[in-house]
Order: sequence, then structure tokens, then C-alpha cells
Amino acid sequence: MENLQSADVVGLFVQLAALLAAARLLGEGMRMLRQPPVVGEILAGIVLGPTVLGHIAPGFQKALFPMEGPSWIAVDGIATVGVALLLFVAGLEIDLGAVRRLGRAAVGTGALALAIPLTLGTALGWLAPGFFGAVTSAGHSPLTFALFFGVALSIAAMPVIAKTLIDLDLFRTDVGMVVMSAATFNDLVGWIAFSIVLGMMGGEAHGASSVWVTIALTLGFTAACMTLLRAAVHAVLPWIQSRMSWPGGVLGFVLVLALLASAATEAMGIHAMFGAFLAGVAVGDSVHFRERTRETIHQFVTNAFAPIFLAAIGLKVDILAHFDGPLVATVFALACAGMIGGASLGARWGGFPPREALAIGLGMNSRGAMEIILGLLAFQAGLIRETMFVALLLMAVGTSVMSGPLMKRALGLGNRKQLMDLLRPALYVKDLGAVSSRRAIDVLAGLASKAAGLPPERIADEVWRREEEVGTGLGQGIALPHARIPGLKRPVLVVGRSAEGIPFSSPDQAPSHLVLLLLSPADDPVGHLETVASLTRRLHDPATREAVHRAATFDELRAAFATAPEHGAMAKVAVS
Amino acid sequence: MENLQSADVVGLFVQLAALLAAARLLGEGMRMLRQPPVVGEILAGIVLGPTVLGHIAPGFQKALFPMEGPSWIAVDGIATVGVALLLFVAGLEIDLGAVRRLGRAAVGTGALALAIPLTLGTALGWLAPGFFGAVTSAGHSPLTFALFFGVALSIAAMPVIAKTLIDLDLFRTDVGMVVMSAATFNDLVGWIAFSIVLGMMGGEAHGASSVWVTIALTLGFTAACMTLLRAAVHAVLPWIQSRMSWPGGVLGFVLVLALLASAATEAMGIHAMFGAFLAGVAVGDSVHFRERTRETIHQFVTNAFAPIFLAAIGLKVDILAHFDGPLVATVFALACAGMIGGASLGARWGGFPPREALAIGLGMNSRGAMEIILGLLAFQAGLIRETMFVALLLMAVGTSVMSGPLMKRALGLGNRKQLMDLLRPALYVKDLGAVSSRRAIDVLAGLASKAAGLPPERIADEVWRREEEVGTGLGQGIALPHARIPGLKRPVLVVGRSAEGIPFSSPDQAPSHLVLLLLSPADDPVGHLETVASLTRRLHDPATREAVHRAATFDELRAAFATAPEHGAMAKVAVS
Repeated sequence: MENLQSADVVGLFVQLAALLAAARLLGEGMRMLRQPPVVGEILAGIVLGPTVLGHIAPGFQKALFPMEGPSWIAVDGIATVGVALLLFVAGLEIDLGAVRRLGRAAVGTGALALAIPLTLGTALGWLAPGFFGAVTSAGHSPLTFALFFGVALSIAAMPVIAKTLIDLDLFRTDVGMVVMSAATFNDLVGWIAFSIVLGMMGGEAHGASSVWVTIALTLGFTAACMTLLRAAVHAVLPWIQSRMSWPGGVLGFVLVLALLASAATEAMGIHAMFGAFLAGVAVGDSVHFRERTRETIHQFVTNAFAPIFLAAIGLKVDILAHFDGPLVATVFALACAGMIGGASLGARWGGFPPREALAIGLGMNSRGAMEIILGLLAFQAGLIRETMFVALLLMAVGTSVMSGPLMKRALGLGNRKQLMDLLRPALYVKDLGAVSSRRAIDVLAGLASKAAGLPPERIADEVWRREEEVGTGLGQGIALPHARIPGLKRPVLVVGRSAEGIPFSSPDQAPSHLVLLLLSPADDPVGHLETVASLTRRLHDPATREAVHRAATFDELRAAFATAPEHGAMAKVAVS
Repeated sequence: MENLQSADVVGLFVQLAALLAAARLLGEGMRMLRQPPVVGEILAGIVLGPTVLGHIAPGFQKALFPMEGPSWIAVDGIATVGVALLLFVAGLEIDLGAVRRLGRAAVGTGALALAIPLTLGTALGWLAPGFFGAVTSAGHSPLTFALFFGVALSIAAMPVIAKTLIDLDLFRTDVGMVVMSAATFNDLVGWIAFSIVLGMMGGEAHGASSVWVTIALTLGFTAACMTLLRAAVHAVLPWIQSRMSWPGGVLGFVLVLALLASAATEAMGIHAMFGAFLAGVAVGDSVHFRERTRETIHQFVTNAFAPIFLAAIGLKVDILAHFDGPLVATVFALACAGMIGGASLGARWGGFPPREALAIGLGMNSRGAMEIILGLLAFQAGLIRETMFVALLLMAVGTSVMSGPLMKRALGLGNRKQLMDLLRPALYVKDLGAVSSRRAIDVLAGLASKAAGLPPERIADEVWRREEEVGTGLGQGIALPHARIPGLKRPVLVVGRSAEGIPFSSPDQAPSHLVLLLLSPADDPVGHLETVASLTRRLHDPATREAVHRAATFDELRAAFATAPEHGAMAKVAVS
């Protein structure tokens, strides 16, 4: 019996901690810059790997990540499980219903966003394999490489796209719906195409007839997952949820399913992650699969497993040493031209005006982690050189970073303020004391005046007029005086607290210990209502109210709001 | 760069799937027998390992679990991370406040439940190391073995104990509170004592002075975690929760903390899991650490990581080949005598009457997975023979299984019916049709009659009398007619549905499509109210109402109730 020795265990835990810490920190940093966290998680590996740390302190880097021996095997095993679970979660998000309901615009966008980059990549990969980093000596056929390059240019990254749309508040618009439906279609078909390429790579080792066997197996397995497995899961979920512990029973069941499907596809010569993806699609399609189970898996995978996998990628390559300028520029240009061009054309054909069609193309252009995973597999299988892997990695990071800002520009959007952006230490009064509601409003209006760029009396008068019409005490010790103010440029939220309580008129007649003064521009009634709704929804949760009242500092108060449950359909993709 | 090859990846996924599937299935089986799931999860490994599968199909067993090579190293790595996270979760559950507030009874119970088995085990381990399976040739001092045996008899398993108390509905009683406080104290002190024994084992390799260094390091690290780390976590959590994504930021932070603490203790020569446990105590003590984060970690660890670790234990030992009858019987008898005796004496001293003191002792006696983990570490470190490991494993399983039934007997409790036990296919009417509310009650009362052992007219009349006093329509298409009936032995719940709707009087005047007829014994008003509350609480959730109305079969209806959110303080331990 072989076991990890004590030194291996130390190494394993230190490597996992370093990868997870760096990935989460840089991921959060990117989030603060309004960029997709996945970009930071990939950068973390580049920082910890040969590219940065390996150049600064090669001995230390090598000691931290030996890349061989039992501790590294264990890290690699965990990262492998991590990428399978990441694809399982991506599969859960696929809405087959949306694919079935696809309108003309979404069909055109999805089909052209796949077909054009696929054709472009396959043609160029066939014509100039040497330039595009094909390993010519490895015995792979030129067609395999050409198809790989086509697929690598054409798969979009749904989770990153969804996150970008949510950030821009476009998720529920026409543009957003078309992008999401098209990306779903693109993801599903693209992964099937990629699994065929993988099958060809695997099959070549055993001769030409074996390639067709693998392709047939892939298509057969896909069909079986989409029909038999999907029906079986749908039939068995109610039984599991009614007889077994909740959510332990269903959690164990779907994880076992994901692991078995992974093992099956890996054994067929495709990668484990493809099976996990199909298992995710089959599970996620059942209406019996409940939100809380999805949420638990999603949180743990996106915040623990996926960052470890994503950061581990950067350990495997020295970007500086394998940076080929012309190749990087060409791959990047082809990827953008193919995807933006294809998706925009499709959207135009579907009837969108030019600006919005362009925005749809820019939205589809995010590659997230998907192209990197493809590149890593091809690199490890000896199909492409390190230079091409680096080019794909940089293309994926670049397209993900530029998607949001360019879409915003194409549509002429401003920065939308989120509730959490409004809570600022400078707009906080620790203790208003035992004063009248009028006096409290005056004090808070005085504080708001500078941020609002308006005289305090005008603010106070507007708020007070509203307050006299209808009391804004919400009950349970909280008041939310508010007004829409002509001439105000952007919303302002001032927070005051009072140990003694302030007599705002409220349903339960109790004095208010927390006063939230909200000012919104008069010409943005929707934004105003959304902020009010966001505040009251959070304060509706008893645990949040308790945390709010208990908060001793501004940070604790802010944390109480940040961690409050925000119910709604978007919650499930908000962390991607 | 070493990577897992395709065959290793297949092996890894198949092994994980087999371990998880067997562990969850047997765990659920145990749950249905009202036994702790952890027992089933341990049995799963015994079934898949050399003890059962290895005797039936040795070639297949060896192919499935080769116990060597990259795929096994990866499984072992995941199991190692799993046990560290399991202890981290156990640490999160430690309520330092409860330890500080300990009353006389809890102090006595905790102290004697630790001291008596510890003394007993140490003394006998010192006197007869050979009989108790000490490895005399390995260079460990006799004192190390004696202390190990003492500790192995004296640590209680808090999660199993909590689950048993909840099942018996004793969690919030005096008996339950004393057992939980004493178990918390016992867990905390017991693990510190065990880490010292581990330090002694590790230190011996480097000479006697090194033993003291390790002990000093252990105590210093423990003190640092309980003071500095605890304060730092408490100070930094609001900042993280207010600035970073939620719950991703805090999830990543606490996992990194757990991994680093694990690496630190492993490097000191104690086991990684001790560091994870202390990190859990430090994190769980902060009021800023929110329930949802705890819940996400808890669900994923108890349903994915822990079962894999627990099942992997059984792979490492052939119980039949190393079964030493006298040793097993003696260890079992000593463990029970020490723990039940010690805890009962302490509870008597604290003022509990004999029956309840005995119940407290029986409650503390569950060993769960903890003694098995201790035994495994000692076995792998060469301190004990396989026979002793088997004896500890069987003792842990045996004490966990017998705790619930014996407590019930000592206190003279009956089986308490849970809501989910009341929902039975025989008490379900698929379509009542378009009838009056009186007629619907008659039909449901007829069905209830056999289960209740009472004539249908008497039931229908009682329910109708109540119905005429006050309409029991809850609104939203659901009615809950109910009555407390003299002479009824146990509660009965009959469920009827109606596609057309039945005119029960309800706040929204809407007809009822789901009718829940609840009958409770007249002499159990509390049980009646609890069932009503449990039903209405679940139906208060919009997603549950939707699932209930959509359910096409009885299983789907039952699943809708089973997966409904049940808010309450007990939720967090209910899955242990």
C-alpha cells in the first residue's frame, strides 16, 4: 500500500493553499476592476509559475511546485477533478429549453458565430500548420490539427459571457437574451465538435479505423446522455429527493453521475470533462433539480475547485520563453474577426440594428477558460507546440477582458451603480443621537450635499416633503427616507445610526436605529425603484436585520448588506 | 513535468465514483434504519475493500483499487484533503461560548467523561501493551502507546452525538444541552491531547529532546490559534465580506486558512487535520461568519469529501483476517465502561436523577469516525498492530449504533414521528374531483380510518366541527383541515389533490387543489402544533408551493416537501 508521506502531505496542502490564495486574490482584484474573476485566476498561475516567480526566484518556485513526485500527482488529480466539475457546472447552466425556443436572431447568431470561426480556423490551420504551431512530427494528421484550430477559435465561454451581461445590466434585454441563447447553442455544439477532435487525436494512435470508432462512440454517448440519461435523471430525482436525506442524497447522486460520465468519456479516448459536461446538461435540464443543490455545487466548484485548476494551468508554461509575437497577434485577430464578425452578421440577419448587432458580436467574443482548456489538452497530447498554447491562452484572456468595455462603448452605456457601490464610509454617521426625524434628515442631507453637488437645504426639503406624505419607517428599527431629485447626476445613499432610536413613522411604531437616506436622479425612476427594492429585499431577511443592528463598524454594516440573500433568477450565474 | 495519464484519470474517477456511491448508498440505508450515516459510510469501505469484495472477487477488487500508482496517490490526496476538511467542519461546530458557560453538570460530565477513560486506557495500555496490540519493535516508548490508548478511549464524536440527540428530539432538553456542552469540551481537550501523542510519536524519531519541542510547538500553536488567529479572523471577516464577492471571497479565505493550518501542523509532526480543526474553531467562533457559508462548506464536505475519506479507510484493512475476538471485546467493554461510567458519574454529581444521568452517559458514548481516524494514524505510524486498528474500528461503529436505541430505552421514549414519515403512498388520493369541502373531508377520513384505527364518521365529524369554526384554507390553493382526536394513538396525515379545486374557505377565496388532512392524538398538543408548523413553514416557500402543485406523482409530491427549506437553528447539524 502506497500512502502519501508526511512531507508529501505538507507539500500538497502548501501547493493547494498557494494556488487557491493567489487565484482568489487576483480574481477578486479583477472583479474590483469590473473584469471577469476567471482572468485573475488564470493570471495567478502565471505569477506563481515559471513565467514570473520562476524568473524571480527559480529555486523557491521549483521547491514550492516541484511538478513531480506524489504531492504534485495529488495536486494534478485534484485539478483534474476540478476541471471535470467546472464543466459539470457549465453543463448545469445549459438551458436546453432556450436552445429549443431559439428565435431567428439567436439561430443566426449561434450558427454563424460557430461556422465562421470554425471555417476560418480549419482553412488556415490546413494551409499553414507550421505557422500556427502544429507539431508535425507527432503523427497526427493535418486534418486533426486544422479542425482543432477551427474549434479553438469558435467556442464561447458561457459563464464569462453571463457575468459580463449581468455587470452591464443587459442580461434580461433583447441583446442579452440573444447572446445567451446563441452562446448556449455554441457551447453545446462546440464541445461536441471538440470531443470529436479529441477522439481523432486518441484514435490516431490505434490506426485510421479506430478514429471512426471513437467518433461513433462520442456521438452515441452524446445521444445517450441527451435522451436516456436525461430521462432517467428526471425520473429518478423525485424518488431520491423524497427518500434520501436532503440535499445530501441528491448531491451525492449527481456527483457520482458526473464522475462516472467522466470516466466513461476518458476511457473512450475523449477527455473526462466532456462526460462531466454532458452529465451536467442532463441533470440541469430536469425541473426536479432544485436551485439549492445547484447553488451548493456551484459555490464550491467556482470558489474552490475551479480556481485551483485555473491557477495550475499557468504552472505548466513559461509564457515569456514561448511568446511568438506574430503568432499571438494573428491568433488574436483571427479569433476576434471570426467570432465578432460571425455573431454580428447573424444578429444583423435576425433584424438587429448595426450598433446592437456589433454589441452582440462583442458579447460572444469572450473565451474565458474554455479555449485554454482546449489548448492545454492539445499541448499535452502533443498536437500543438508551446507557442500555440501561449497564443491561445493570451487570446482567451484578452477577449475576456475587452468584451465588457467594448460592449459598453458600442451601446453607449454609462457605469451603472450597484447598491454596494453606494455604501461608502464617507457617507456614514455612526450616531445621530436622540433627535427628531426632521433633524436626522437635515444631518444626513448635509452629508449628502457634497456627493450630490446640491445645496443641503434643497435635499432636506425634498426628502421631508416625501416623508410628510407617507412615513418611510420600514418597521423593525429601520427607516428609508428617499426622494428623486431633479438635477441630481447619480444616486447617493447616506447611512446614519442612532443608539437611542429616531421616531420615524412606521408600521410597528418602533423608533428607527438605522436610517438610510436615498437620493436618486429624477429622470431615473427605474434605477430608484431598483435600489429601494434591493435594500428592502435584503432587509427582509431576519439574519441580515440582526447583523445590521449588531454591526459595530462601517465595515461590519457593509458586510451585513453584502452577505444578505438577494433572491432572484440572476443569483445562480452571478458568481461565474 | 509529471501528469496523470489517461488510464490514471479513468482509474481516479472510477475509484472516486465507487467510493462515493457505496458510501452514500449505505449512509442513506443507515439513515433509514435511524442510524448515523457515518456508520454506513465506514461500512462501504469494508464492503469494497479486502474484507468483503476482496474475498469474493480478489482480482476485480485489486484492479478497481490497486492501492498504488498515480491514480491511488491522487485518491489518497483527495481523501487526505477530505479528512482535513472534515475536521475543519467539526471545528466550525465547536461553540466556545458553550464551553465558557458550562454549568456544574456539564463541567463534571465533560471532565469525568475525559478523565476516566483516559486514565483507564493509559493504565491498561501501560500494563499490557502486548495484549492491546502495541508494536513493541518500532522504537516508540511504552508511554506513547499507553497515552494513545487512553486518548483513543476518551474522545467523543460530536457530529454523531448531535445527530442522535436531534433524532430523539432531545437536542434542546437539559439532557441534550449537557451532552452537547460536555462533548464540545471533550472534543477540544481530547484533540489537543491526541496531537501531543502524535507529537511524541513524531518526535521520537529525532530523540527525546525533540519530543518536548513538538509538544511545546503543539501547545503554542493551539494557544496562537485560540487567541491571535481567532481575533484576526474576527477582525478581517467583515472587511472580506464587505469588499469581496459573496460568498466566494469568504469561502476562499477560510479554505486557504484551513489548508495553511493543516500544512503547519503536519510540518510540526502532528497531523494536518489538527491544524484544520483549530482553524475551524477560530473561524466558527466569529459572529461574522455567516450561516450560509457554513452551510455550503458543510454540505460539500459531509456529502462529498468525508464519505470518500471514510470509505477509503475500509480499503486499508482486512477485518476478518485481523479480527482478534478477546481484544475486540475488551476494547469495546473498556470504551463503554469508561465513557458511560465517567459521563454518568459527572451528571449524577451535577444533580441529574439516575435515569437521566445514565442517558447522558449513553449519549456521550458515540465514537463516530474520530476513534477510527486516531487508530488509522497510529497504525500508519507503526504504533499499533492491525488487530488493534480493527478493534478500534469496530468499537467506534458499535458505540455509534447502540447510542440512540439505548438512550431511548433509558428515558422510556417512544418513536417520534417526523413529518416525512407521515407522508405515505397508501394515504394519498390522486384526484378527489370537484366536490364540496365536506365531501372531500369524508373521503380523506375514510382513508385515514384504517391507519387511525377509528371509525371514519368519528374522524370526519371531528374535522368538520373544527372546519366550521374556522376555515382551514391556507390560500394559494392549499387547505389543511385538522383535528386532535381523543383515543388516537399516533398522528395520521392524508393527502388529497383535486384538479378542479375544492371550495375550502381561505383568505384568498381561491379553491384548494391540495388538501392535507392532519389528525393528532388529543393528548399531544405540542406534537400537533409542530406538525402544523412544519407543514406551513415548508409551504411558505414559493418554490415549494410551485413544486407541490406541479407534482405529477406521489413521489414528486413527497420530494417537494422533503426538499423544502426548513428554517431553524437545527438545520446546520441535521446532516452530520
